[in-house]
Amino acid sequence: MAKQFTVAEIANFLGAAYKGENITITGLNTLEEAQSTELSFLANPKYIKQAETTKAGALIIREDQAHNVQNAILCDNPYFAFARCMGLFAEKEGCFEGISEFASIHPSAVIGENCTVYPFTVIGAHAKIGDGCTIFSGVYIGEHCEIGNGCTLTPNCVLMSRTRLGENCYLQPGAVLGGEGYGFVRTDFGVQKIPQIGHVHIGDNVEIGANTTIDRAALAKTAVGNGTCIDNLVQIGHNVQIGEECFIISQVGIAGSTKVGNKCTLAGQVGLSGHLNIGDNVTIGPQAGVTKDIAENSVVSGSPTMDYNTYMRYCILLPKTPELFKRVSALEKQIAKLEERLENNK
Amino acid sequence: MAKQFTVAEIANFLGAAYKGENITITGLNTLEEAQSTELSFLANPKYIKQAETTKAGALIIREDQAHNVQNAILCDNPYFAFARCMGLFAEKEGCFEGISEFASIHPSAVIGENCTVYPFTVIGAHAKIGDGCTIFSGVYIGEHCEIGNGCTLTPNCVLMSRTRLGENCYLQPGAVLGGEGYGFVRTDFGVQKIPQIGHVHIGDNVEIGANTTIDRAALAKTAVGNGTCIDNLVQIGHNVQIGEECFIISQVGIAGSTKVGNKCTLAGQVGLSGHLNIGDNVTIGPQAGVTKDIAENSVVSGSPTMDYNTYMRYCILLPKTPELFKRVSALEKQIAKLEERLENNK
Amino acid sequence: MAKQFTVAEIANFLGAAYKGENITITGLNTLEEAQSTELSFLANPKYIKQAETTKAGALIIREDQAHNVQNAILCDNPYFAFARCMGLFAEKEGCFEGISEFASIHPSAVIGENCTVYPFTVIGAHAKIGDGCTIFSGVYIGEHCEIGNGCTLTPNCVLMSRTRLGENCYLQPGAVLGGEGYGFVRTDFGVQKIPQIGHVHIGDNVEIGANTTIDRAALAKTAVGNGTCIDNLVQIGHNVQIGEECFIISQVGIAGSTKVGNKCTLAGQVGLSGHLNIGDNVTIGPQAGVTKDIAENSVVSGSPTMDYNTYMRYCILLPKTPELFKRVSALEKQIAKLEERLENNK
Repeated sequence: MAKQFTVAEIANFLGAAYKGENITITGLNTLEEAQSTELSFLANPKYIKQAETTKAGALIIREDQAHNVQNAILCDNPYFAFARCMGLFAEKEGCFEGISEFASIHPSAVIGENCTVYPFTVIGAHAKIGDGCTIFSGVYIGEHCEIGNGCTLTPNCVLMSRTRLGENCYLQPGAVLGGEGYGFVRTDFGVQKIPQIGHVHIGDNVEIGANTTIDRAALAKTAVGNGTCIDNLVQIGHNVQIGEECFIISQVGIAGSTKVGNKCTLAGQVGLSGHLNIGDNVTIGPQAGVTKDIAENSVVSGSPTMDYNTYMRYCILLPKTPELFKRVSALEKQIAKLEERLENNK
Repeated sequence: MAKQFTVAEIANFLGAAYKGENITITGLNTLEEAQSTELSFLANPKYIKQAETTKAGALIIREDQAHNVQNAILCDNPYFAFARCMGLFAEKEGCFEGISEFASIHPSAVIGENCTVYPFTVIGAHAKIGDGCTIFSGVYIGEHCEIGNGCTLTPNCVLMSRTRLGENCYLQPGAVLGGEGYGFVRTDFGVQKIPQIGHVHIGDNVEIGANTTIDRAALAKTAVGNGTCIDNLVQIGHNVQIGEECFIISQVGIAGSTKVGNKCTLAGQVGLSGHLNIGDNVTIGPQAGVTKDIAENSVVSGSPTMDYNTYMRYCILLPKTPELFKRVSALEKQIAKLEERLENNK
Repeated sequence: MAKQFTVAEIANFLGAAYKGENITITGLNTLEEAQSTELSFLANPKYIKQAETTKAGALIIREDQAHNVQNAILCDNPYFAFARCMGLFAEKEGCFEGISEFASIHPSAVIGENCTVYPFTVIGAHAKIGDGCTIFSGVYIGEHCEIGNGCTLTPNCVLMSRTRLGENCYLQPGAVLGGEGYGFVRTDFGVQKIPQIGHVHIGDNVEIGANTTIDRAALAKTAVGNGTCIDNLVQIGHNVQIGEECFIISQVGIAGSTKVGNKCTLAGQVGLSGHLNIGDNVTIGPQAGVTKDIAENSVVSGSPTMDYNTYMRYCILLPKTPELFKRVSALEKQIAKLEERLENNK
């Protein structure tokens, strides 16, 4: 049975007033898809017509826009109020509790208070797990790993030895931290592997997406700062340093030893070469290919990257390239004719 | 021991005639690599010389092309006949049967008839598995998941809570469905996480590639339609809607809330921005970056995308860009000279 | 307790002389980050100032550059000597030994001498594992797989049936080998699946990255040659043939039936279309999109690809494209004026 609350309970949770009937709300949904027991919201006034005709049982809405809405919770910022409600309705993932007797936990590992450890999990020697952590099935935690309080490792995550997570980190399924960095060189006597003896250190409140991979450093550490949110299928190479509160969107790849500042946003499928310095507050557009340092506060796009305004003009012009070649050919003919004419005029 | 059949048995299976010796066939292979007990085929007449000299024990071939072929199964469409034979020789993956006592199945979960559940699998509370399903080892199925009849979840697939699969779906290893959508916003008081309370709904006969990730919706559902085939390492964001019988090739990324119509083909490494509408029967070339809606029946390529014909011309011209800059510089000099000459002529 | 050695022991291991104090070294680090009990190195003379002021307890350095360095191990090639030391300090991953009673091993499977098999591993019928292999938890090894001596399969790797690994292969976590190739065709009667009855054959000394996927062939085999090193999140399609000692960097995608020669380097996020021939010693730049064969010894970049020198010029000119359009428009106006003037001069 999913959660349910009355309109009054939700209004109370938000510290807001409500008007209309105090119905029971069984879920949250968009204006378009909401049903009669669901709560929706109006953030952008251009959808006000939709708000007035939605099937939703109640709306979170600004008071000045609620004239024609029957059941309404009245808030100044409906978007944030609705986001808070999403937390109210969110269900805890997982139904197992306690430490499974079918987990393989090394006797030297230390597990904190109030942890959940699912069956079929391996926790290696000298690993330390903080309080209130949840470790789902199929997770592997190598020797000497250190995991802060309140972390969640969803199914099939892997932390190779000596990986550290701060507090309240959340790893989506299949994330791999601490796999060996790519350290190979061609030599006269064949390919040589450079052992990777560094580790991965993750800050507090970091989110890591499904099947994302973060390699351990050659030396010292690969690091991700507090509050950074990494999406699915991202590759982070050895010795990369990512700052705080960055947004790294899906399928981004960051090559070895590159440093990314604080509060940067890397859109989907961006690629960064190795050994770069990306300043604070940098935004990089989707699929961009970055081969040079980027100064703080820049907005860039393209492969190779250019500043955002140039890129937007380039995007409009690009499909006109074939036409441009024709125009230049035409100019060349015109010029030749003019020159010929002047020659004859002499 | 792999499967084997006589030429006569195979011809009979295909409803076709054969000529030559009724030898035993132990496998299928290409004209180039087939050995004397293997069956091959000729689909494209330009390879007829190879067909006449192959080491294959027998060929599937059109009768009018079979004059110089000794052992032949005679079919009008050798390609499809051969594809059917591949089904004949295909071996069932996996050797375990029944419900393993080393699977962790919640007492409230319902498992259909004739299912196989490998060891080290977790099936959560209130999950429902249809008849004839195979669940390999390392799979995690969250609470309230619903899986239709005849589905196969290969090793280490993850379905987070309330994910639904239709009938006859096939998930390659490591696929993750229902991980949390990427819902983060920067605010004055730090990064806020928007809980993702929607789910993932997959239609019938859907194939999902290895290590592919499909995120659960913020609200309502992320959906994939019947018969759609998704390759490996694909990212499908929260609230994406994909139609029926689409082909989504490897490493494609689709950002949140984008809608893809029916029978679309997205080639490898394509990226789609969020909140787009892609019509039916759209084909998008490899590595394309899509930032705008695409009308039905379009064929587009490039990053940014343009129509296919423009793109093909662009591809030819692109390497000539440096030359074009030189040509324009030359024109500028010529014009300057002409102007000077006209000035002097005055 | 991490490993430690004296400077004398390390010098002895390298066959080198040392000067200064014979202190105990507890780890290796960069010049920048090394502490007083750590060893660092100077490879590039431009960092000599840093070498003279580093906090490192000792340095590996060329004798002629060591004047102002107190504790030094004197080597002609400090980089390689240091790489060898990394092997010395590298810790074995994993602390389990023997064959776990919580592994599910089919009675017909054959496990070599001195193998480690973690709990929660499945090894299928007729699988053969060589001597000295380590199989971590969550690994699935299908029927008839063959694994050479000295291989390591880290947590959650999957080998579907009949996959073969040569000797001394190392698979990072979550790698999937032998998943079904993408074989679907649209027909008048809906999408048809072409069963994939081939396999995956991997040579000796091959490294495969985390969450990388290598599909089994439609017929015959998908093959990776000896000594090839594949990074994380790479997709290798069915029937791809990769030669020896190739470097395939992260997030590369190679479509079906493409052949890559020996000693090729494919940089990050490169995409190769299907059925191509890439010669030996080819280098392909990051994010390149390859749709045509490439001759041996070529260096190419870009999407579409061009030769490296053209690409580098193109990269400089690309942001000037908007300007180029303006220049051409200006020329057109100038020409029109000139023509008008000449017309009036008549």
